[in-house]
Amino acid sequence: MAVGPGTLPEFHPVAGFKLGTASAGIKTPGRRDLVLMEMPADASVAGVFTKNAFCAAPVQICKRHLQETSARYFVVNTGNANAGTGQEGWDDAATTCAEVAALTGVKDAAVLPFSTGVIGEKLPVEKIVAALPAAQAALTESGWAEAAEGILTTDTRPKGASEQFEYNGQTITVTGISKGSGMIKPNMATMLGYVATDAKVESELLQALLSKSADQSFNRITVDSDTSTNDSCMLVATGASGVLVSEDDQALLSAFTEVLDRVMRDLAHAIVRDGEGATKFVTVAVDSAAHQREALTVAYDIAHSPLVKTALFASDPNWGRILAVVGRAEVENLDLDALQIYLGDVCIVENGGRAASYTEEAGQAVMDQEEITIRVVLNRGDVSETVWTTDLSHDYVSINADYRS
Amino acid sequence: MAVGPGTLPEFHPVAGFKLGTASAGIKTPGRRDLVLMEMPADASVAGVFTKNAFCAAPVQICKRHLQETSARYFVVNTGNANAGTGQEGWDDAATTCAEVAALTGVKDAAVLPFSTGVIGEKLPVEKIVAALPAAQAALTESGWAEAAEGILTTDTRPKGASEQFEYNGQTITVTGISKGSGMIKPNMATMLGYVATDAKVESELLQALLSKSADQSFNRITVDSDTSTNDSCMLVATGASGVLVSEDDQALLSAFTEVLDRVMRDLAHAIVRDGEGATKFVTVAVDSAAHQREALTVAYDIAHSPLVKTALFASDPNWGRILAVVGRAEVENLDLDALQIYLGDVCIVENGGRAASYTEEAGQAVMDQEEITIRVVLNRGDVSETVWTTDLSHDYVSINADYRS
Repeated sequence: MAVGPGTLPEFHPVAGFKLGTASAGIKTPGRRDLVLMEMPADASVAGVFTKNAFCAAPVQICKRHLQETSARYFVVNTGNANAGTGQEGWDDAATTCAEVAALTGVKDAAVLPFSTGVIGEKLPVEKIVAALPAAQAALTESGWAEAAEGILTTDTRPKGASEQFEYNGQTITVTGISKGSGMIKPNMATMLGYVATDAKVESELLQALLSKSADQSFNRITVDSDTSTNDSCMLVATGASGVLVSEDDQALLSAFTEVLDRVMRDLAHAIVRDGEGATKFVTVAVDSAAHQREALTVAYDIAHSPLVKTALFASDPNWGRILAVVGRAEVENLDLDALQIYLGDVCIVENGGRAASYTEEAGQAVMDQEEITIRVVLNRGDVSETVWTTDLSHDYVSINADYRS
Repeated sequence: MAVGPGTLPEFHPVAGFKLGTASAGIKTPGRRDLVLMEMPADASVAGVFTKNAFCAAPVQICKRHLQETSARYFVVNTGNANAGTGQEGWDDAATTCAEVAALTGVKDAAVLPFSTGVIGEKLPVEKIVAALPAAQAALTESGWAEAAEGILTTDTRPKGASEQFEYNGQTITVTGISKGSGMIKPNMATMLGYVATDAKVESELLQALLSKSADQSFNRITVDSDTSTNDSCMLVATGASGVLVSEDDQALLSAFTEVLDRVMRDLAHAIVRDGEGATKFVTVAVDSAAHQREALTVAYDIAHSPLVKTALFASDPNWGRILAVVGRAEVENLDLDALQIYLGDVCIVENGGRAASYTEEAGQAVMDQEEITIRVVLNRGDVSETVWTTDLSHDYVSINADYRS
């Protein structure tokens, strides 16, 4: 299941950024499971990675390689996360990088490895190595749609976003793909996200833009509260458009940031819409909190509550469950009489209890929709935070109980 | 579903403590849904209550009445939680107390009200009042089994524990009942628990014993991470045995505490075994943590992870999911190479990855059992904590999506 139309956008290619997809037979024979991405020598590359302490070998190598030299290739496999694999996992990821380097004539450290799939099984590195030439031969600037397919695991559909904007007569493109469906509560990044632009952006600024954008997109989604060992999101600026985005031109920086943020948010939302077993796309907004921590505590406690999520699945306006979560959230000296809770535009709780204006019919009308907003107005300050999540359905249990994922 | 045999124990009556059960027709006509409990004027009464800020009207009145005078009666209804009901809910709970007081000739404040059931609907106070005489007429020291039935909501079976011990030729009894199945992550108490003893215990000591015991029993269980608005656990010492438990006789105090703790733990475990949709009884133990907070963080993160819980439901030794949770738990400077994770007696993770000795068969043999222990040895200090939980099954979703509970 998934929420809303799952059609891919028209992908605007990003000059200088190529993608090649192949079948390595890692888990399922014949399916696309290996993606190579190539960027120019003078591209800027930024990345954000999982904060899971058990982060996978490829994530550790990515971070080290990014320190050492400019990245030229990303190599991504699905079907195996190469996580919880110890020294052998590290060696396998390093071997993959070395093989890409040998094939393309760059340094090992110019290759960044990414893996996604089952945790704790040995990476079938020989299958990956054997398929690398096919991925290399397929490299093309128009390879986005194939790559979007090639990075999926339990996802039911590929995910992409692509925008262009004009600035002083020049066209700038921002295009990206993402994957993720379960084990989704990113902490600095999503399962996997790759975004490229032909703007020219210095590395330091690019990293700052990515980190900030990820904090309002991938770092604000949750399907099941579990942060993955392999979360990674990369942003590449090839500079091929010749347009320099920098602090010196605030209007351009602002226009670029706006587009980047929208692409990142769309990619993050696409993961929630395709969340395991999802039948609802749920926005949880907390307004007028005293500080960010309490806003996120209330928002995530609602987004993770199995009782709220099963009520959403049932389209049941069982607002008592939302009230109970707000009450148990760790907010100091919460004034129950001062807060309001809304389901869509319908006020469900005020003055410490059910809103006088509330009717079951009004609540039901909101719950019957496929996209639902739960809003808590704390009236304690001026901080707002929004997170996005899914419901909890029978299919979620089936997907995670019936298959080793 | 439920785990293990659900037979009630032989209830040893507690001299001076009477229970009377009646049918008020609150939600389901004909079922036992109203329980009155009576204690002597010189009994000591202790209570622990939910920390949910939206705590229900009866919980607020309980706390106030306990301050005012000695409790003589508990009045418990199921089918309606009288929570999120504002001033009207307060008035309804107060009316119930006043009616019990009028019927029995005690002060209003000597009556403590308890409600459990759906949140946010008006308490049908007239039905309760109409059934009070029947409950009063049924008061008997042998009323435990009927009362255990009379306080249930989505529970599939009644829960009780009862023990006696001899001390210097005298017999002391500790008997209790509990209820709870969903919205279970008690914070100071369970949904509802009532324990009585014929020992004589001063109020202050009784409260200390209850708080400490609850912290290692009801406050260490979780079914779905949601703390209820109505959690309450009461401990009554009637003194009818004539045996004084006090700090002056440490041997007796120790013997009494041991029995009390076991009764409380058995009642708490009974709630987990009857957790909504439960097919497994899961013990999560964290050993050699640096401090209690990190031990509980790791334990609850495992106990709440939908991916771990669905793997438990599937009897799938998908240890990568456990590793991923430990990695995302907020433990500062976690040394992955120093920790071990066990499934039963089988070491699954050591030296930062899968244990060399691990085999899928050994993991599967543990997972096939109905009672499973997950143990994380952090090797950072000398603090241990244990929590108990269930798996996450299709029935959990059905129970919470298909019915308004």
